[in-house]
Amino acid sequence: MEDIHSVLDSIYNKFKDFEDIGEKATYIPELANVDERLFGISLTTVNQRQVNLGDAHQKFSVQSISKVLMLIMAYNLEGDALWQRVDVEPSGAGFNSMILLELEKGIPRNPLINAGAIVIADVLLSHYKDPESEFINFVRRLTNDPTVTFDDKVFESEKGVGYRNYALINMMKSFGNIQNPIDEVMDFYFKICSLSMSCAQLSKTFLFFANDGVDPITNEIILTPSRNKRINAIMLLCGFYDEAGEFAYRVGLPGKSGVGGGILAILPNMYSIVVFSPKLNPKGNSYRGMAFLECLTTELSDSVF
Amino acid sequence: MEDIHSVLDSIYNKFKDFEDIGEKATYIPELANVDERLFGISLTTVNQRQVNLGDAHQKFSVQSISKVLMLIMAYNLEGDALWQRVDVEPSGAGFNSMILLELEKGIPRNPLINAGAIVIADVLLSHYKDPESEFINFVRRLTNDPTVTFDDKVFESEKGVGYRNYALINMMKSFGNIQNPIDEVMDFYFKICSLSMSCAQLSKTFLFFANDGVDPITNEIILTPSRNKRINAIMLLCGFYDEAGEFAYRVGLPGKSGVGGGILAILPNMYSIVVFSPKLNPKGNSYRGMAFLECLTTELSDSVF
Amino acid sequence: MEDIHSVLDSIYNKFKDFEDIGEKATYIPELANVDERLFGISLTTVNQRQVNLGDAHQKFSVQSISKVLMLIMAYNLEGDALWQRVDVEPSGAGFNSMILLELEKGIPRNPLINAGAIVIADVLLSHYKDPESEFINFVRRLTNDPTVTFDDKVFESEKGVGYRNYALINMMKSFGNIQNPIDEVMDFYFKICSLSMSCAQLSKTFLFFANDGVDPITNEIILTPSRNKRINAIMLLCGFYDEAGEFAYRVGLPGKSGVGGGILAILPNMYSIVVFSPKLNPKGNSYRGMAFLECLTTELSDSVF
Amino acid sequence: MEDIHSVLDSIYNKFKDFEDIGEKATYIPELANVDERLFGISLTTVNQRQVNLGDAHQKFSVQSISKVLMLIMAYNLEGDALWQRVDVEPSGAGFNSMILLELEKGIPRNPLINAGAIVIADVLLSHYKDPESEFINFVRRLTNDPTVTFDDKVFESEKGVGYRNYALINMMKSFGNIQNPIDEVMDFYFKICSLSMSCAQLSKTFLFFANDGVDPITNEIILTPSRNKRINAIMLLCGFYDEAGEFAYRVGLPGKSGVGGGILAILPNMYSIVVFSPKLNPKGNSYRGMAFLECLTTELSDSVF
Repeated sequence: MEDIHSVLDSIYNKFKDFEDIGEKATYIPELANVDERLFGISLTTVNQRQVNLGDAHQKFSVQSISKVLMLIMAYNLEGDALWQRVDVEPSGAGFNSMILLELEKGIPRNPLINAGAIVIADVLLSHYKDPESEFINFVRRLTNDPTVTFDDKVFESEKGVGYRNYALINMMKSFGNIQNPIDEVMDFYFKICSLSMSCAQLSKTFLFFANDGVDPITNEIILTPSRNKRINAIMLLCGFYDEAGEFAYRVGLPGKSGVGGGILAILPNMYSIVVFSPKLNPKGNSYRGMAFLECLTTELSDSVF
Repeated sequence: MEDIHSVLDSIYNKFKDFEDIGEKATYIPELANVDERLFGISLTTVNQRQVNLGDAHQKFSVQSISKVLMLIMAYNLEGDALWQRVDVEPSGAGFNSMILLELEKGIPRNPLINAGAIVIADVLLSHYKDPESEFINFVRRLTNDPTVTFDDKVFESEKGVGYRNYALINMMKSFGNIQNPIDEVMDFYFKICSLSMSCAQLSKTFLFFANDGVDPITNEIILTPSRNKRINAIMLLCGFYDEAGEFAYRVGLPGKSGVGGGILAILPNMYSIVVFSPKLNPKGNSYRGMAFLECLTTELSDSVF
Repeated sequence: MEDIHSVLDSIYNKFKDFEDIGEKATYIPELANVDERLFGISLTTVNQRQVNLGDAHQKFSVQSISKVLMLIMAYNLEGDALWQRVDVEPSGAGFNSMILLELEKGIPRNPLINAGAIVIADVLLSHYKDPESEFINFVRRLTNDPTVTFDDKVFESEKGVGYRNYALINMMKSFGNIQNPIDEVMDFYFKICSLSMSCAQLSKTFLFFANDGVDPITNEIILTPSRNKRINAIMLLCGFYDEAGEFAYRVGLPGKSGVGGGILAILPNMYSIVVFSPKLNPKGNSYRGMAFLECLTTELSDSVF
Repeated sequence: MEDIHSVLDSIYNKFKDFEDIGEKATYIPELANVDERLFGISLTTVNQRQVNLGDAHQKFSVQSISKVLMLIMAYNLEGDALWQRVDVEPSGAGFNSMILLELEKGIPRNPLINAGAIVIADVLLSHYKDPESEFINFVRRLTNDPTVTFDDKVFESEKGVGYRNYALINMMKSFGNIQNPIDEVMDFYFKICSLSMSCAQLSKTFLFFANDGVDPITNEIILTPSRNKRINAIMLLCGFYDEAGEFAYRVGLPGKSGVGGGILAILPNMYSIVVFSPKLNPKGNSYRGMAFLECLTTELSDSVF
């Protein structure tokens, strides 16, 4: 652990003044207001040590990383029947592309692109009377922090400009792959995206992925080992839009990014790590975050391969 | 090891009389002549134990699995400059699709689909006077068997009907991404595909992937640890055409399949395994081979995740 | 004229008991209630003779034919500036395809596919306080019938299932090609589609297209000769979804079809003709209507070519 | 006729010093050698008057315009059975796109894009022992000039770089839509493209299209009236690659362009016209040629609509 701490420290210092040629997500107006210099890192090990660096306690918009949380809930409710409504293949296209969705008759490529996550939201709506409460309670339990909440400004901001997502859901509805009213599904979906958490909270929340699905603190089984491994596989293949191959190639860990600037990554049996830096590369992933994780895993020879 | 042996034995027996609803590849006439009941397994561990079951010593047409061997040679010659001519992203489409290749101006998605492997063949032709000899010598060294060779009947058969591959190379040539004469590149490419080996030979050949790039018998460095990890990542994301997600989800190992009915898979630090069973699923991967590997890795809880 | 009348009579009788293997549009529930045996024809000549046969006075849902009426209004308001927001090229795809719309960044291929007509509706909304009244008044003037109106049941029915159209408008909005609120544009668009008219009314309404843009009865200039010719060109190339080539090849006249079962066609300097028969071919055009028009124009050697 | 002559004269003078922002086709090296200032016009009327202006007697590379000549021969040999191997729909894409060809399983959109013309060449090869002689004799008969021939330099030049066309034919062969050996089909196809003629010869050659399929000089029936009308329809919808709508909209005549800089257009019952000017717009059609024809047909109010 001391090793990891000092390696993290040294790489953090190297990247603190990194020349970041990324650009903040501007298509969600509220995200454009974030201070682009923010830079936080949190790593939590399965034996429950946590290293926090920089702005690790700064809350930010979790965005697509929370798709993984929805997916866990839906997978536990539906089991493998879930895959009749969404596939597990990489998309080979941007996060909001419509083209494959039309060719493939409304079945999204995977649950981590927008279309797939919208189907997952629809699944949760069909199961729960109050899916929003169920979701936030699930997150609070994982985080062990009852104050975790949504950011209403981000919610309103994203909903007001979410035309591409409305296009996706309408296309899927036309193919019969959405069961609930469109506005209800989308409100829930945008709520989920507006989840606001810090690196420290997130690395704690997702730790069970590194521990065969078991929360190492409470010993609660979040996912069976088999399901845990399967969602790790989905994250590795589909967690970075059309840059999944690049991330697997450079970093070699399953993970998920969000346009808020966060990146989650998992080293099975070892740790979960979350990096936050708001400026994005053209593919929509944190520019500094990816560079940091590549450097870290290269230095530590950490990789699933 | 005894454990693996007995688990393999028991699963082998279970799958020996498996109802195989796959279909042999018929588009290469010569492959249609293969006895479809053949079923072989070979697992080699990094501490150099090998288990062979069924038709593990039966030679078969290696087909696309040999794309990995070409890739190793080209990557060692060119380093990361190689990725200017071929990407590392999953294709989200069939093994010989032209659509992305046109949209992406002649740069193939990855080196394990046909278009990408043709570019790799072109790279080797630019480096070597006699690339065929260089290739077979490389394979013979890895296999430690100087008799490994190509199957000329398969070569002629595939070349005679390889129109789709000629379409791919002509499209890439039109974008300037092929440097050598088309017929020379294709002859070399079809030669590579016609490599004929057994499960036992193949699991030995690819063992270094499970050992950080070092042949555990000769201690020769085939790939640096970093490059070894990167090709493992490419295999996990791109090794199974548009079923890569399914394989990662069900089996959880990097690997590569061929339409001859072989599947290679790697458990890093542990073993390489090759299964051979000629009947294919609609995506072009061995139907029984995939089912066998899913069962094995589930039983052993083996997975990179 | 007597010639045309007797030819029409004889072909009408031939097609009255035609074995119609088409299928009624079922995706709009209300259209499924139409009596599928209905068959009407109306031809009006530029010298103001009208022949009506069968159910020529039966009102039916005009659907996409009314896209031409919107287009006339928008073209007269915007002139050639209109083509910055919608192209004039055939789509080579179905009437509601999203694929080209995404590749071409929200600019629809032409004003006669759904996406293009939605842009046209948006243009009219930007110009008029009460576009619905402006539209219906325009139609009533052309028809010389103040009772022409919309069918509210069809409007509600289509709006309730128009997910694909909502997908299209949201995609265009995401590219900035829609200026008004989505719900307002769609309500207006669905209203337009729900226009209810008979063959006799429609052949009278569209007669000016055969007369260089001038209503031969009132002498009102509906379109300048140049604009008249241009919309005729657009109808010939884009009026039949991905069957435009087939219609031009077999019938050889500019025209427009609707999923209500109507087809309009124009022989410049001679006549306009409207056929109504509800059962559609797989491309969404009236099966009997197309066969009738092919037979008629072949017999009369009528064609623009 | 005097009217047309003087109108042509005046427009010719206007366009002689036109600022031509087009670019010569450079992908066929030999075409890059053509003098880009050349500008010729020839109009021939059905009553056999011909007006020639500028470089009307300069021979140039006919290129895709000769696809129409092949099509006539194949249509007369096969009748409507021809449409089982090639469709009659506009492509909505560039002249050599592969994407639709793959989605539509090797059936080209129409006979005037490259893929379609290659199928037509294959049809002629199946019918004739010496298709090249048959073709050139057919052209010589239409032109009434036994010296018309191919340009071997253009043939060799185009063949040497025709990778995209080889990609197309291999894709179609993989779908079973090519019956003869690829090299034979392509040699014949490139020969056809290398036809060398002048505006004056071409407007004479294609005159029958304006005369219901009958050569007005010899009274030979080249096409039946019905077939003549059908090929006119195909030219109007498919003669200008993905600019067919633009040409129909602006010019309003059926026609065909070639990358050599020629454009043919037909006014049924009146005349055929050929313009030659080598610099092309980004869609591959003569920039000055299109502008000239738009001006001419606008001034004369000539159009099929």
